[in-house]
Amino acid sequence: MEILMEFGSRFVSQLQSPTLAFLLGGILIAALGSRLTIPDAIYKFIVFMLLLKVGLKGGMAIGEADIGAMLLPAFFAVVVGCLTVIIGRYTLALLPGIRTEDGIATAGLFGAVSGSTLAAGTVVLESEGISYEPWAVALYPFMDIPALVLAIVLASVYLKKKDGTGDKVAIWPIVKESLQGPALSALLLGIALGLFTNPDRVFDTFYEPLFRGLLSVLMLIMGIEAYARLNELRRVAHWFAVYAAVAPLMNGLIAFGLGYIAHVLTGFSPGGVVLLAIIAGSSSDISGPPTLRAGIPTANPSSYIGSSTSIGTPVAIAIGIPLYIGLAQLVFGA
Amino acid sequence: MEILMEFGSRFVSQLQSPTLAFLLGGILIAALGSRLTIPDAIYKFIVFMLLLKVGLKGGMAIGEADIGAMLLPAFFAVVVGCLTVIIGRYTLALLPGIRTEDGIATAGLFGAVSGSTLAAGTVVLESEGISYEPWAVALYPFMDIPALVLAIVLASVYLKKKDGTGDKVAIWPIVKESLQGPALSALLLGIALGLFTNPDRVFDTFYEPLFRGLLSVLMLIMGIEAYARLNELRRVAHWFAVYAAVAPLMNGLIAFGLGYIAHVLTGFSPGGVVLLAIIAGSSSDISGPPTLRAGIPTANPSSYIGSSTSIGTPVAIAIGIPLYIGLAQLVFGA
Amino acid sequence: MEILMEFGSRFVSQLQSPTLAFLLGGILIAALGSRLTIPDAIYKFIVFMLLLKVGLKGGMAIGEADIGAMLLPAFFAVVVGCLTVIIGRYTLALLPGIRTEDGIATAGLFGAVSGSTLAAGTVVLESEGISYEPWAVALYPFMDIPALVLAIVLASVYLKKKDGTGDKVAIWPIVKESLQGPALSALLLGIALGLFTNPDRVFDTFYEPLFRGLLSVLMLIMGIEAYARLNELRRVAHWFAVYAAVAPLMNGLIAFGLGYIAHVLTGFSPGGVVLLAIIAGSSSDISGPPTLRAGIPTANPSSYIGSSTSIGTPVAIAIGIPLYIGLAQLVFGA
Repeated sequence: MEILMEFGSRFVSQLQSPTLAFLLGGILIAALGSRLTIPDAIYKFIVFMLLLKVGLKGGMAIGEADIGAMLLPAFFAVVVGCLTVIIGRYTLALLPGIRTEDGIATAGLFGAVSGSTLAAGTVVLESEGISYEPWAVALYPFMDIPALVLAIVLASVYLKKKDGTGDKVAIWPIVKESLQGPALSALLLGIALGLFTNPDRVFDTFYEPLFRGLLSVLMLIMGIEAYARLNELRRVAHWFAVYAAVAPLMNGLIAFGLGYIAHVLTGFSPGGVVLLAIIAGSSSDISGPPTLRAGIPTANPSSYIGSSTSIGTPVAIAIGIPLYIGLAQLVFGA
Repeated sequence: MEILMEFGSRFVSQLQSPTLAFLLGGILIAALGSRLTIPDAIYKFIVFMLLLKVGLKGGMAIGEADIGAMLLPAFFAVVVGCLTVIIGRYTLALLPGIRTEDGIATAGLFGAVSGSTLAAGTVVLESEGISYEPWAVALYPFMDIPALVLAIVLASVYLKKKDGTGDKVAIWPIVKESLQGPALSALLLGIALGLFTNPDRVFDTFYEPLFRGLLSVLMLIMGIEAYARLNELRRVAHWFAVYAAVAPLMNGLIAFGLGYIAHVLTGFSPGGVVLLAIIAGSSSDISGPPTLRAGIPTANPSSYIGSSTSIGTPVAIAIGIPLYIGLAQLVFGA
Repeated sequence: MEILMEFGSRFVSQLQSPTLAFLLGGILIAALGSRLTIPDAIYKFIVFMLLLKVGLKGGMAIGEADIGAMLLPAFFAVVVGCLTVIIGRYTLALLPGIRTEDGIATAGLFGAVSGSTLAAGTVVLESEGISYEPWAVALYPFMDIPALVLAIVLASVYLKKKDGTGDKVAIWPIVKESLQGPALSALLLGIALGLFTNPDRVFDTFYEPLFRGLLSVLMLIMGIEAYARLNELRRVAHWFAVYAAVAPLMNGLIAFGLGYIAHVLTGFSPGGVVLLAIIAGSSSDISGPPTLRAGIPTANPSSYIGSSTSIGTPVAIAIGIPLYIGLAQLVFGA
C-alpha cells in the first residue's frame, strides 16, 4: 500500500518534469484549438540534433566500453523487436474490424523504435540520477530493424497466402532503407563521429547544453501532433486505440523482464534495463512510417501512424517512462 | 537643461544597445538593398521561444506573487486597451483621405500588443538593472484582447449605421481567436508550465541563456521587415504614417500615467510602470493582423499592417522604450 | 623526412577535429545513401549566424586596431582575387573540352571567397592556438569582389571578340550585387554592429558559444551537398574536376606567398598569413553563384557550381587548412 502511494506520488512528480509537462502542454493547447505550431524545418533539425547528440555520447563511451557486455542486451533487443511484432500481429488479428495488413503494419510500428522517446528517456534518467551503460543507446537499431523487417515479411507471407499478391521479400533493401532513414543515420553518424574523432569540445559546448531545451520543444511538437492525429485515428477501428494504449506498456514490460535477466546474468545496469524498456515501449515516428508505407503499400497509414502518434507515443513517454523507473526502484531497490 | 542633456546622452547610449542596434541595422541593410533574409521558419521559432520564455518566467513568479497587487494594473491594462482604440478611431476619423474602416482597424492594431516589443522591453529593463513585478508580463492579454474586440465592435457599429452591412458582433469568438493565436498561446502556455510544473532547469540552461541572442536576431528581422513594408504604406494615405509615428508614444504615455496612479495607490513598481507603457506603446505584429483581417474584412491590410510594422514598431522600440525609462528616472528618481 | 612525418601526423589529427570530421561525415553518409538532410532554412540561418559572428568579432577589433597595418594585406587580397581569376581563366582555356565561358565563370568562383570556409578557418586557428589580426576577416570583400568583377569583365570581353554579343560591363552593379548578397551583407552588418555599438554581452552569451556547434552542423551540410553535386560535375568535362582539386591549393599558396611578404614588410602575423591563404583557397558558395549566373548567363552553372561545391570546398577545408597551418609552422617556426 505504501509502495503504491509512493509510486503514485512519484508518478505525479514525473508529470511535472519538463519532458512530460511539455508533451501534455502540447496536447492541451492543441485540444484548446491553439494555432501555435513549430515549423517543420525546426522539428527536423531538433530531431537531428538530439539523435546526433545521443549518438556522439554513445560513440565516445563505446570507445572505452567492454563490448562483450553489449552482446546479451543486443541479442535481447533483437528478441524484443521480433517478439513484440509477432504478439502484436496475432493480437490485432483476433480483434474485430481490423484488416490484417493494417494490423501487421501497426504491430511493426510499435515494435520499431522512436528516437525522440529514446532521447526523452535519457533526459529523465539523468534527471533522476539513474546511470546506465552509455552504449545502451546503440541498442536502438538492434530492435528497430528486425521489427520493421519482420512486419514486412509477415505482411508479404499473409498477402501471398490470401491472394498471391505478396512478393518474395528481399530483406537487405529493408535493412538498408532503415539504416538510411534520417533518424538512424543521425544516430549512427553520431556514434561514428564519437568513436573515431574528437568531438568533446563541440559536444560539451553545443550538443550537450542544448539537449534538454531542444527536447522540451520536441515534446511540445509531439503533443500538438498527437492531438492533431486523433482525428485520423477516429476514422479507423476503435480497437487500434485500445492496442495503442496497451502495447507500449506491454512491450516495455517484456523488455524489462529480458533486461532483468541480462542484469542477473551479465550485470546489465538497472538504468540500462529501464532504457531497454523505454526503447521497446516506443513506437517509430520518423523512419518507421515511410519504410512501412513502401513495404506494405496496401496497409492504411491512418491506422498505424494515427495509433502510434496520437496514443502510442504519449503513453510510452508519459506513462511508460515513470512506470519502468518506479518498477526499477521496486525491483533493484532505491 | 541638464536633465535634457542627460536624457539625450542616455538616448544615444540606448541606440547602441544590441536590441535597438540590431533593429536599426536591419532597417539600414534593407534600405541599402541587401538580399539578406532570415527564413520564416526561424522567425516563427524565435517568436515562440521568446514568448514561451517570457511566459515561463512570469508563471514561475506568479506562483509566489501577491495576486491582489495585480488587480489594479490589470484593470488599467484593460482601460488602456480600450481608451487607445477609442482615441485612435476618432482621431483617424478626423484626418483627410482615411476610410473609416481602415482607421478603426489601425487604431485596433495600435491598441493591441506586440509580444516581440514586450520581449525587447524586458531585456532593456534587465540591462538597465530596473526591476519589475515578474507577473507584469501577464498584463499582455488584459490589454490586447479588449483592444481587438473593441475595434471589431466599433467597425461593426459603423458599418451597420452606414449601410446596414455590419453584422451583430459575437464577442466570444474574437476573444477565443486572440487566445488561440500563436503569440498569446505561447505566452499562456509558458505561464501555465511555469506555474504548474518545474521547468527551472530547462529554463536556466536553455530559454534564459538564448533569450538575448534570439531577440537580437528578431530585432534584425523586424528592421528588415519594417523597411520592406514602407512601400505598402506609401500606397495609402500619408496620415497613417503620421498616426503611426505619434500613436505608440501617446499610448505609452497614457499607460505610464495610469501606471503611475497604480504606483501611488498600490505600490506598482517603477519598472512595472515602464513595462505597462512599453506594452501599451506596442502594436500587434503576429496575432492582431489575422484577427482584424477576419473581423473587419472590408479594411485594407496595407493601411494597418504597413503603418504598424514599418513605423509603429520601430518607434515603439527605438524611441518609446528609452523615453519611458528616461521618464521613470525623472519621475521616480535615480 | 621527420618534418614530413610530423606534417603527416598533424594532418591525420586535423581530420579528427570536429570541423573536418563533420565535413567528411557528411560526404560519407551521403555516399552511403542516407536520407538525412538539414532543412534549407536551418542552413541559411547557420550561415547568417556564423558570418554575423565573424563580422561582430572583426568589428569590435577594428575599433582598437591600427588600420595602417591593414593596407598592405588588403592590397594583396585584391591582387590575389585578380591573379587567381586570370591564372584560372587561361589555364582552363588550354584544357580540352571546356567552353571558355564556363572556364571563366569557374575561375571567377574559385577566385571569390566562401564565408563558410572562412568561419571554419577561424575555428581551426583558434583550436590550434594560432592568433591572427582580428581585422583579417575583413579582407574577405577585398578579394571576393574584384574576383567576381574581373570574371564577368573577362567573359564580356571574350564574348564581344567572339561574336559581338558581350555587352559593355558596368562595374558598379556587380560590386553592388556582391555587397548586397546575403553572405557579405551579414559579414559587413556584423562589422558595423561590432564597430559602432556595444554587442559584447550578446556576443559573449550567444554568437560566440554557438559558433563551433553551428559550424559543425554547417560542415555536415556542406559534406552532404558536396556528394550530391558530384553527379552534376560528372555531366561536364572531367578537366573541371582536376582544376577544382588543384586550384584551391594553388590559390592558397599564392596568397601564402604574398602574405609572407606582408609579414616581412609590415609584421602581418603568421596566423593572418594562414587566414589570407584560407580565404584565397576557398571558392564562393553563397553569393558567388547567383552573381555569376546573372553576369555570365551563357555559362553552364553545373560546371562552376559542381566543381566548387563537390570538390573545391572539401579540398579547401580538408586539405588546404591543415596544409597552410603546417606550412606556417615550417616557415615561421613552432
